[in-house]
Amino acid sequence: MSQYEAYYPLWEKLNIDAAKLEGALGAAQKRHADLFLTQADRPKAMGYFDDLWGNLQTGRIAELDKLKSEGKPLVGTFCIFVPEESVTAAGGACYGLCSGSPASIPEAEKELPRNICPLIKSAHGFKLLRVCGYTQSSDFIYGETTCEAKKKTWEILAKHHPVHVMHIPQKKDEKSMRLWREEVEEFQEHIEEVVGRKLSFEEHKKGVEIINAKRKALRRLDALRGMHGDIMPISGLDSLLVMQLSFIDEPVRFTEALNTLCDELEERINAQKSVFEKETTRLMILGTPFAAPNWKLHQIVESSGGAIVNEESCIGHRYFKDDVNLEGVTTNEELTARMMERYKNIDCACFTPNEARIEKIVKMHKERQTDGVIYYTLSFCHTYNVESHLVAEAMKKEGIPFLAIESDYSPEDAGQIKTRVEAFIESIRLKRGA
Amino acid sequence: MSQYEAYYPLWEKLNIDAAKLEGALGAAQKRHADLFLTQADRPKAMGYFDDLWGNLQTGRIAELDKLKSEGKPLVGTFCIFVPEESVTAAGGACYGLCSGSPASIPEAEKELPRNICPLIKSAHGFKLLRVCGYTQSSDFIYGETTCEAKKKTWEILAKHHPVHVMHIPQKKDEKSMRLWREEVEEFQEHIEEVVGRKLSFEEHKKGVEIINAKRKALRRLDALRGMHGDIMPISGLDSLLVMQLSFIDEPVRFTEALNTLCDELEERINAQKSVFEKETTRLMILGTPFAAPNWKLHQIVESSGGAIVNEESCIGHRYFKDDVNLEGVTTNEELTARMMERYKNIDCACFTPNEARIEKIVKMHKERQTDGVIYYTLSFCHTYNVESHLVAEAMKKEGIPFLAIESDYSPEDAGQIKTRVEAFIESIRLKRGA
Repeated sequence: MSQYEAYYPLWEKLNIDAAKLEGALGAAQKRHADLFLTQADRPKAMGYFDDLWGNLQTGRIAELDKLKSEGKPLVGTFCIFVPEESVTAAGGACYGLCSGSPASIPEAEKELPRNICPLIKSAHGFKLLRVCGYTQSSDFIYGETTCEAKKKTWEILAKHHPVHVMHIPQKKDEKSMRLWREEVEEFQEHIEEVVGRKLSFEEHKKGVEIINAKRKALRRLDALRGMHGDIMPISGLDSLLVMQLSFIDEPVRFTEALNTLCDELEERINAQKSVFEKETTRLMILGTPFAAPNWKLHQIVESSGGAIVNEESCIGHRYFKDDVNLEGVTTNEELTARMMERYKNIDCACFTPNEARIEKIVKMHKERQTDGVIYYTLSFCHTYNVESHLVAEAMKKEGIPFLAIESDYSPEDAGQIKTRVEAFIESIRLKRGA
Repeated sequence: MSQYEAYYPLWEKLNIDAAKLEGALGAAQKRHADLFLTQADRPKAMGYFDDLWGNLQTGRIAELDKLKSEGKPLVGTFCIFVPEESVTAAGGACYGLCSGSPASIPEAEKELPRNICPLIKSAHGFKLLRVCGYTQSSDFIYGETTCEAKKKTWEILAKHHPVHVMHIPQKKDEKSMRLWREEVEEFQEHIEEVVGRKLSFEEHKKGVEIINAKRKALRRLDALRGMHGDIMPISGLDSLLVMQLSFIDEPVRFTEALNTLCDELEERINAQKSVFEKETTRLMILGTPFAAPNWKLHQIVESSGGAIVNEESCIGHRYFKDDVNLEGVTTNEELTARMMERYKNIDCACFTPNEARIEKIVKMHKERQTDGVIYYTLSFCHTYNVESHLVAEAMKKEGIPFLAIESDYSPEDAGQIKTRVEAFIESIRLKRGA
């Protein structure tokens, strides 16, 4: 009897290809076990996140189904510009869609070009194969215009699932911000249509408070893992898993579990307990996001004498670095204005110019005193790829060791990347005279 | 003594690498002679355009220099969304920058990723090598946000030349069009800053009339070459050269020369004189632009038993298909509104959705009764590449033979493309029972 048998009726209701999903889950669980559970000295509180990974397409999907039966909106997204605060305000769930696996890419390439970003192809393939409970559950997928391959893929994805597209501008001047605000307001109206009523200011505020608290807990993790010098109480791999799950889990419960983990990490720091050896090379990752289960670079770095202490990515620091400032806010209009202030500070490479990002990277490096940075670009992501030239220039000026890696989801380049990462770490050590 | 000696002072004034440019010109002239002058039965009036090609970096640059000395604006662009009407209104020149040669790409790749569009890399390399009189002459380069590789390259190009970026939206709803109009108005103000005064309504109108007349002449050429069945009075290669030069030449003189050519083509049609044999396969090209001297695909098709009767490209039909409607317009404000109406009809793949493009392609095919279409994508152009899936679907539905080709500027894939084009033409002939 299948261990997933109890979920077959739910999967079938969601038009999931149950046999295929079961096969995929087996592989995903094994990979998680091999990479994560074999790590020495893991924090005990990681158990919550391991369990959540185990329930990704079962227990959590059942929770979403319950929300849906209560008339709450389920919104699937691929970008931190889609306002999860507003979905949370409506009691619904806003989550990141499956998009991190190479397994779904061949199917996607029947409709999409090969030479676009693997994240988009993976996500499209999950829909075509019907093996992601999040995609299948969602009332609609909220696409956006932050990258052109995504922007055009929505037109094809819309043949298979309801898709709405939020128009994110490419500049941040006043007229662009006005357009963007109108788009956010339309999104909020769309959510209100799903729930069938206007949301009160108190509800909107509550939504922001819940997500602010989640972001605060993620910042706490970020400081604990990377701002205590040689004492690194958690691996980059584990931290990445937590951040990936921050786009999936119920936010209040997640925040509580993350704060429990952070309490444990604080104890470890007080006890000077690190999961890495003293001379480990401390690295920061810049660039494009790591959607689960894309753990390739972290696995390579942390098995090559390196430790990853921060990801300057959308699944990472870019997501949680800023809160919506609620101080003195008394109306929905003021609240939306404050949300826009926060959005304006998100330094996605889709904007031109995007100089604030470079200043921020230098600041992040100084806060963490890392030994170097790895600029990670998902293959064919033009915005982050072209911008890497300016970042590399700035790093050179600051004397920060810099390595650029462009990669997709295939395991084929893992050996080559490992060789380059090892050489990079070795060159840093030689410079330090270690 | 160099044949270009007379232009050395001008080139030096423009900070052009004269020795390098001279070498490049030799190659460009030879390539033009080999490809164009060897064609049989060319229209006599092509002489004007051959001469213009010969004067590209000499006589025409001297004309631009004269304009500049009179305080007229010189604006270099890469996109048909930059309003040349407004530059023309100011008595200045708005032209397409050098961007069609593989020779400048290795230099560009010192600052740009390899896997972005060759057009952008080529243009960037021309600036780094200082071998394009147009780039060197321009008061500023007017970039835009229609594609992300361009959008991000402007940030790097700005280190080497004054660059302004026009924010083109990604949707065409009311609020996007409002933003766009404000951008066009800012551009017009920018031009007025260069000339140091406000332009009158009459001047603005005159600018539109001049460009409308150019577009009308280009539509005339388009109809003459491709809407008379087996009678094709001019090659696709020659037509392409004319269209490429439409972005370079003084527009009034160009229009006159083009109308002279069209008169000759009309005579040929009346005399039932075609430059192709009767059974030649008539093809339409869809997709991305061919910047001079990118003649690769045309050369391949027309030496493989095919004739190209239309390019649905920005250097082509997309550029000249619509005029600014001046009927009843009496104020600058109304004029700008009419310009926006025209822009809204440009079906660049940068917009989402972009369904009108597909309807248009079917209509274009029906008007020309072509035997098939070749969808041409410059390598790594995500917007046109992803959109090709929807176009291919529509072509299949209509029963229009379809071939997709993605290529850069290197000559390396010419053999492989020729094989595919020959097989495509052969399959069309077999179907026709020819």
